Amino acid sequence: MDFKACYNNYINTVNTALIVNMPPRDAYPSRIHEAMHYSLFAGGKRLRPVLCLASFELFDSMTAKVLPVACALELIHTYSLIHDDLPCMDDDDFRRGMPTCHKKFGEAIAVLAGDALLTEAFAMASSIGNTGYSATIISMLAAASGSTGLIGGQVMDLLSEDKPIDVELLEYIHRHKTGKLISVSVESGAVCAGADSTALSALTKYGEALGLAFQISDDILDVIGDAEKLGKNVGQDAKLNKATYPSLYGLEESKKKLHETVEQALISLQGFGKKSGFLCELARYVAYRDR
Amino acid sequence: MDFKACYNNYINTVNTALIVNMPPRDAYPSRIHEAMHYSLFAGGKRLRPVLCLASFELFDSMTAKVLPVACALELIHTYSLIHDDLPCMDDDDFRRGMPTCHKKFGEAIAVLAGDALLTEAFAMASSIGNTGYSATIISMLAAASGSTGLIGGQVMDLLSEDKPIDVELLEYIHRHKTGKLISVSVESGAVCAGADSTALSALTKYGEALGLAFQISDDILDVIGDAEKLGKNVGQDAKLNKATYPSLYGLEESKKKLHETVEQALISLQGFGKKSGFLCELARYVAYRDR
Repeated sequence: MDFKACYNNYINTVNTALIVNMPPRDAYPSRIHEAMHYSLFAGGKRLRPVLCLASFELFDSMTAKVLPVACALELIHTYSLIHDDLPCMDDDDFRRGMPTCHKKFGEAIAVLAGDALLTEAFAMASSIGNTGYSATIISMLAAASGSTGLIGGQVMDLLSEDKPIDVELLEYIHRHKTGKLISVSVESGAVCAGADSTALSALTKYGEALGLAFQISDDILDVIGDAEKLGKNVGQDAKLNKATYPSLYGLEESKKKLHETVEQALISLQGFGKKSGFLCELARYVAYRDR
Repeated sequence: MDFKACYNNYINTVNTALIVNMPPRDAYPSRIHEAMHYSLFAGGKRLRPVLCLASFELFDSMTAKVLPVACALELIHTYSLIHDDLPCMDDDDFRRGMPTCHKKFGEAIAVLAGDALLTEAFAMASSIGNTGYSATIISMLAAASGSTGLIGGQVMDLLSEDKPIDVELLEYIHRHKTGKLISVSVESGAVCAGADSTALSALTKYGEALGLAFQISDDILDVIGDAEKLGKNVGQDAKLNKATYPSLYGLEESKKKLHETVEQALISLQGFGKKSGFLCELARYVAYRDR
């Protein structure tokens, strides 16, 4: 199967599992479930669950075992987008070409829909049952998403708006705001499959490089991307005076850095041989996407 | 030991565990950790963790085993208060006699502090380790707090502001907004201690009655309570046109209902004999408190 077909297969698996295991759209109180479904099924790339499934499949083919964790990652990602878009945060009106959750449902419901998706993530993850690694997985997800993970990155991003920031702070923000959840996606798949520490450490390196590549690529797309393809306005970072790779390093140097980061990701996978073909392609896809 | 001394003992145990296990106040980024500590150590009654510990002690004396779960319950409770107080929700300026989190730290940090406390709750709960009941406990906490639990109650509370509501809806709101987390506090303690299904079902009944008693008492205090003791304005429910037990049943009938509910709670504990003395006192304390 080629890369695109394989990626689409993963997406279908994740979407089916989400639909089956989430409280339905019309569950009481329906207003909150409509808002949760609206943001969750807005056509995301499902990058985090796909990473988790593909990492798991390096070691084990019984994906049903890891699927709840893959879904939990997407729920955490979606909650973080809803809250980031709020008027008191980035104040965005559009996301993936559609009105943001608070534009559609109002601010109160958007806050609560985010809260509910975050809570549902842990409900979903705990549905793997009382295995020998349940608490480990929950703890990894919470650490990656908490005040010293994703939320920490968002805090520093907010606090440094309209201020000159250095490379160190920029990297802290990116490593935390997007990097941690991407890394833990790869790691949690491997932990569910019982990977040994050597394999796990290689995959951690892959996940970190991929997270960085994702962010550099995001920054570059905000400069040279196509608003229609991206489903959001471009040039927003410059408008908000946000530090980005292009603003600190220049566009060409950022592209070079992106290329080196992809190479690092690929090198980390060498020990897995042919089996890691999909993850290699995925690194290139994340780095050189146009949306 | 008398009831007050015993309650204070539990509070000290919980506060010590929270201080030891939370990211410290000055952890980077310090702004978010200051906000989390500000709301968490604002002098709450620690009712939920105390219920969890006392329920556990009906069966087992090694409280260290259940302490992470007790702390998680307080983190969830604190997050829900911070988000409930936001301008887009109840828009409250004071909580426990102090400025609310968003008044002190701004709205963005308050949203993120709530998110971080919720996430930390699951990190904390997962620190019980990969036991035979870890996933069960996480799943119980998430169900009680999610879109068909606590959040569901908050949604219906918001959607019914300024509208006439019936007894059924009032009870849905209370059973979910406060009842579910109080019930699960009692239940999770018992599950950690390996209680059998008969004991568990008796404690569920106790938890449900206690949650209801707590809410009726809260509604009554908003009519006849002392603002200074409560640390918040009274008469808020009437001002916001909120349905409450007194507004639907009248004050005297509400007091009668409260009394009956306490009786139900006590009856549920009969099978535990003397050991349940503290939980009996706690039901009376919750119902007839002045703050």
